[in-house]
Order: sequence, then C-alpha cells, then structure tokens
Amino acid sequence: MKVINEEFRVSTKGYCDLINITGHISKILSQSNLQRGILTVFVVGSTGAITTFEYEPGLNQDMKEFYEQIAPVKKRYHHDETWGDANGFSHVRAAFQGPSLTIPFDKGALTLGTWQQVVLTNFDNQPRSRTVVVNMIGE
Amino acid sequence: MKVINEEFRVSTKGYCDLINITGHISKILSQSNLQRGILTVFVVGSTGAITTFEYEPGLNQDMKEFYEQIAPVKKRYHHDETWGDANGFSHVRAAFQGPSLTIPFDKGALTLGTWQQVVLTNFDNQPRSRTVVVNMIGE
Amino acid sequence: MKVINEEFRVSTKGYCDLINITGHISKILSQSNLQRGILTVFVVGSTGAITTFEYEPGLNQDMKEFYEQIAPVKKRYHHDETWGDANGFSHVRAAFQGPSLTIPFDKGALTLGTWQQVVLTNFDNQPRSRTVVVNMIGE
Repeated sequence: MKVINEEFRVSTKGYCDLINITGHISKILSQSNLQRGILTVFVVGSTGAITTFEYEPGLNQDMKEFYEQIAPVKKRYHHDETWGDANGFSHVRAAFQGPSLTIPFDKGALTLGTWQQVVLTNFDNQPRSRTVVVNMIGE
Repeated sequence: MKVINEEFRVSTKGYCDLINITGHISKILSQSNLQRGILTVFVVGSTGAITTFEYEPGLNQDMKEFYEQIAPVKKRYHHDETWGDANGFSHVRAAFQGPSLTIPFDKGALTLGTWQQVVLTNFDNQPRSRTVVVNMIGE
Repeated sequence: MKVINEEFRVSTKGYCDLINITGHISKILSQSNLQRGILTVFVVGSTGAITTFEYEPGLNQDMKEFYEQIAPVKKRYHHDETWGDANGFSHVRAAFQGPSLTIPFDKGALTLGTWQQVVLTNFDNQPRSRTVVVNMIGE
C-alpha cells in the first residue's frame, strides 16, 4: 500500500471557465503504477470547484447558465462589501459545488463512465492559475 | 491495511428514481471484515448521483421537487441540441449533486446517523442499470 | 501507513448555523503526526453538511441567503407531513450540500487555500450537538 501526492497547475480564465482535467489526472495515476485504490482531486482556493460531467460545448453552456441562475454575477453579495472585490457570486458557487472529488481506480484506471469527465471550474471574476492536488492511496 | 474494490448493479427507472443503497453497502463492508477506515461510493456515468438523506416517501418527493425546481425537465438545454436525447436536465442535476461520497467506518460499521441513508439517484430520462463502485481502505 | 478515526462534538444553533471547524481538524491532524495522506470530514445526521468557503461575516450571510433561496424555510415540504417536525427545508439543504469532504494533506498540513475554511452547517430548525468524524489515512 502506498500514498502519493502530486499537484499540477492550470491556467484558467474568469467567470466560470470549465477545464477538462481528466487527462492530467489519468496520466498522474498511470505514472504511479498503482492498480487499485482511490484518487482524490482537490482544488486549492475558495473560488474553484471540482465535479464530473460530459464535457461538450452544449452541456458546458448549460452548466454556465445553471450557475448563473442559482448565484447570478450581478446580484448584490455581502461578501463584496467586505473586500470590495465583486466576486461574491464565485464564492457562493464554489461553496455549494465543492472543492473535492474521490474516485476509485481498478486495474490502473479510474472507474469513470465513458462520457464522465473530471472538470475543474474557475468561478472567480479574473483569470487564475489554479493548483490541483491529486492524492492516490492504493497498491 | 487493505484496499478492496467491489461493485454492484442496480436497476433504476428514469426521471429521478431514488434508490436506498445503504443495505448493499453495509453488506459489502461487513463481508470485508475491515474494522476501521473509509468507504467510497461512486456511481459510474454522467446522469447518476450519490448523497445521503432520510429515505422516506415525503422527503423523497421533496427531493424530486427540489431537483425539478433547480433544473426543470422541460427547460431547453444546449446539450439536447448536441445529441438530441432530451436529457440535458439529468446531466445538470448529476453534475451539481456529484457522483461520489466517502464515509468513515469504525468497529466495522459506517458512521451514518440513524436516519441517514445513502441514496443513488438516476436522473436520466430512461431506465438505467447503474454500476456502483464501492472502495474500502482500512484495517 | 496508518488509519486513524477521531471525532469531536460541536454545539450548534438552529436555522443555518455556520461553524468554522478548520482549527479542530488541523489540531487532530497535527496530533496524528501523519505527514502525507487524506483526511475525511463527515458530519453524522441528516440535517448537517460540510463544505469549504471563506468564513467571514459577509459571505456567511450570503450562504444563508443562498440556502434560503433554493430551499426556503416557509415552503411546504412533504417531509413535514410525515413527521410533523417542520424541518423539511433542512433535510433538502443537507442532502444537496452533502455530509462529507476529503482533503489531501502534505508535510503534516491540509492543502487548503489561505482563505479556504472547512465549515460545518447545522440546517436543522433547532440547536443540535453535532458529531463530526475525522478519518485520516496516510503515513
């Protein structure tokens, strides 16, 4: 049994930039030579999130519209009065979507569905270089 | 310390079918003979999700109404234009609810509350045989 | 490689009480002497949740307003007809926010961002003493 931490950085644009990081993660898993266990993906910071969906232009647009519907950019947020940085919407979106995802792997491969990609979202109102931590525990 | 992967399949109906899988998972944990560690439940595919709630007919109806409120079946989704399969709502719901849940266990039992069940949801617009992966790491 | 379970209790008020538990968790990790691995935080019960956000009064208020917007206290819930305890809203909120969070740690410290705190929410309509389970696996 081994435990391995890796990390990588991703350049992201602001306002709900969706990045497919499945390739990054699969490569890290492959290089570990681990066969069976769990892999945890964690985005560092308060305005990023991780989940899975089918990464294609139509659904990407649907996700952006969904986030806009439940926490609109233009709404007035108390957080903006605290710091004056006008990104309250991005904090609320990131908090409910969550920064972490744990995926089992077997025979050296993540147990994702065919169309199920791991997606990093930068909700912030500016470009950010995002740090993603990848932890693997297994054998 | 051991790492074990198991999986099982569940027949589900379409349009927000809620399945209590606590019994399946507890049985798998029990058969592992592990006493202390974590168990990760992961549903394979882009239109399923895992969370916990009190599985009873009233709350089940509330959850269905909640999902319908935040991502209605009848809304127009860009994803539907990509594939023509009219299940955009199910992808959005699955993405924000998430496919994965990690639960500690101690003395061979999950640390769930008395009324806290693990629920698999099939958000797709058709019946699906769902694969659920259960990973346990512990001793 | 070791696996450790700890737990602690937190007194919470009702109706969306937000508690910053980052200090509790960091102390437990520190006392474990583990350097590299994952830490899982799990709240026991059907009306509590765990996520991360910047814990400051403005954003705390935004989160309360967000939860009120998507699952209002005053709405009629079928769950309330089952038990007559008028906390249907808290079950719906807890179910979609989720009870569990897994965070990598390295060099003995959680990989959280500078402003990213771990927050326990009590959504119930009454004060609750909440049990939080903290599992660590690593070396």
